[in-house]
Amino acid sequence: MTGRTNRQWRLARRPAKMVEPSDFRWVEEPAPDLDRDGEILVRNAYLSVDPAQRTWLAYDSYLPAVRVGEVVRASAVGRVVRSRNPDFLVGELVEGLFGWQDYAKVRADGASPARKLPEGISIPLAMSALGATGLTAYIGVTEIGKPLEGETFVVSAAAGATGAAAGQIAKSKGARVIGIAGGSEKCRRLAEHAHFDATIDYKSEDVKHRLVALCPKGIDVYFDNVGGQLLDDVLTQLALRARVVLCGAISSYNEGSTGPGPRNYINLIARRGRMEGFVVLDYADRLAEARAALSALLDSGKLVNRVDIMDGLERAPAALRRLFLGENQGKQLVKVADIQ
Amino acid sequence: MTGRTNRQWRLARRPAKMVEPSDFRWVEEPAPDLDRDGEILVRNAYLSVDPAQRTWLAYDSYLPAVRVGEVVRASAVGRVVRSRNPDFLVGELVEGLFGWQDYAKVRADGASPARKLPEGISIPLAMSALGATGLTAYIGVTEIGKPLEGETFVVSAAAGATGAAAGQIAKSKGARVIGIAGGSEKCRRLAEHAHFDATIDYKSEDVKHRLVALCPKGIDVYFDNVGGQLLDDVLTQLALRARVVLCGAISSYNEGSTGPGPRNYINLIARRGRMEGFVVLDYADRLAEARAALSALLDSGKLVNRVDIMDGLERAPAALRRLFLGENQGKQLVKVADIQ
Repeated sequence: MTGRTNRQWRLARRPAKMVEPSDFRWVEEPAPDLDRDGEILVRNAYLSVDPAQRTWLAYDSYLPAVRVGEVVRASAVGRVVRSRNPDFLVGELVEGLFGWQDYAKVRADGASPARKLPEGISIPLAMSALGATGLTAYIGVTEIGKPLEGETFVVSAAAGATGAAAGQIAKSKGARVIGIAGGSEKCRRLAEHAHFDATIDYKSEDVKHRLVALCPKGIDVYFDNVGGQLLDDVLTQLALRARVVLCGAISSYNEGSTGPGPRNYINLIARRGRMEGFVVLDYADRLAEARAALSALLDSGKLVNRVDIMDGLERAPAALRRLFLGENQGKQLVKVADIQ
Repeated sequence: MTGRTNRQWRLARRPAKMVEPSDFRWVEEPAPDLDRDGEILVRNAYLSVDPAQRTWLAYDSYLPAVRVGEVVRASAVGRVVRSRNPDFLVGELVEGLFGWQDYAKVRADGASPARKLPEGISIPLAMSALGATGLTAYIGVTEIGKPLEGETFVVSAAAGATGAAAGQIAKSKGARVIGIAGGSEKCRRLAEHAHFDATIDYKSEDVKHRLVALCPKGIDVYFDNVGGQLLDDVLTQLALRARVVLCGAISSYNEGSTGPGPRNYINLIARRGRMEGFVVLDYADRLAEARAALSALLDSGKLVNRVDIMDGLERAPAALRRLFLGENQGKQLVKVADIQ
């Protein structure tokens, strides 16, 4: 026994639509012992709050669904507090799918290994622009969308962590960047702080008409985080040889089933377009290069990083809800313990 | 005046759903004179009957829609009977968008130029396996789908001209080929004569269950001529890094608007898949090589070509209907005049 209490959020039932507090069960139990060589015990510092988590609670995809009764799956960063693994020393900073809890026992041979994080950068930065969020945006833009100088690049959920980064990365490649976001305040901030060329407020503007007005020569790259009607509207405005980067579909994550599909997919024929999905996990060999490029963009001021931190493990369910209410301002994190 | 009568089918109104005889108007007028240098007059021999024609009657896509009152647009092959163009001699065989008529006046500077056909191959062969149909299948398979040895390749409308060719081309690349077609007779013929590895009769079988059974490791390439529910069913069965070749969507061509979109497009993310449209017109620089490859496949018996010829210009509307009733057996042509 470690003597430590491990507070946890476990999945109580699969969410029906929007995640509700009652979908989760608060459990307190002793932190686990290490009983096999290769294991480490991690004290979580911050949890990453991501739209994909909603899908993990619902169905098998690139990862199996979280089972009812299991700790809620989430990316997290923490420090090694016990180790029976010579590759991980007590005190080292690690990231992995450690879940909504104080302590995670990780087996080196498990499906969810720990990766070391370098010291000297702030954990929130390592979990946003230099973490999976920034890397997802970088790989999606540079490997799938590949905007060329002067091309028109449109991104949805543009005020979200991934969308804002994707737009700024595309801008750094010379593209004209248009962000679609919900609310005039978000749009104002994208234009002023993230240097977007134009924005569309889907809550108050007619997206289709605005796309026609803003993209007279068509949309060359669409970085899609939303799916749904927005994707369908964009498909009517594709330029020749357009690339649609499928990063997410947050509009559908709260539905019991996915909504209607994009009927204008057929436009991909006339426009010789391409719609392609990707998962950043596949690009392990590119991540060092991507991190270096993101660091350079941050240093030059071309990438403005924004982090939204809620304090306390008990607020993890509320933090996840915020994403789907569009309330987060940049990358949503939950601070579990003060151990930078 | 040429003294010749030019029989024509003109568009009387835009078809509502299935094309009806009353959507077209039969006109007889004198064959046109050549009045400008560069022009040629072509006597049509055969008309090509293609699903895409239905879309040309309905809306602008990669070509502008046929206007009401205009001759119905169709690919055709004929012979030059008058020429004011030094590049085209009287008697030469040419192909182009000559339309549903006996005589087409073509301007060398027009949007619909004529291309010469070599002598010595039968016109029906030049309009099927060695024409746009075979070339579309070849480019779609080799440039977009790119099946590898041992991969699973599924094609819809597999008994249609393009589908049957696509399946056989994929088979020649070493793929395992599964065809989806309507009716046991079509399926039997694909297995026996076109050497498909398996078939699914969508009229009598549960396509989704059959796909699971026949593709336990998933579908690597889907060559889609149909769209609609079939596309959605296939998207649930994609292998990792699958390629969906968007060639056509015949299931939607008779609808006033396109039907529901493929809701399972979202699977492209989890499966890291790609859905891509193409138009064979873009590959002019590849066509000589493609024709040579198709000829070699025909010579070796790996590509069995099947042509379905209706006799007489007056039957062109009926021939187009046949496509949407699934009655054609291979490439549908209409013979207008006996001038091989």
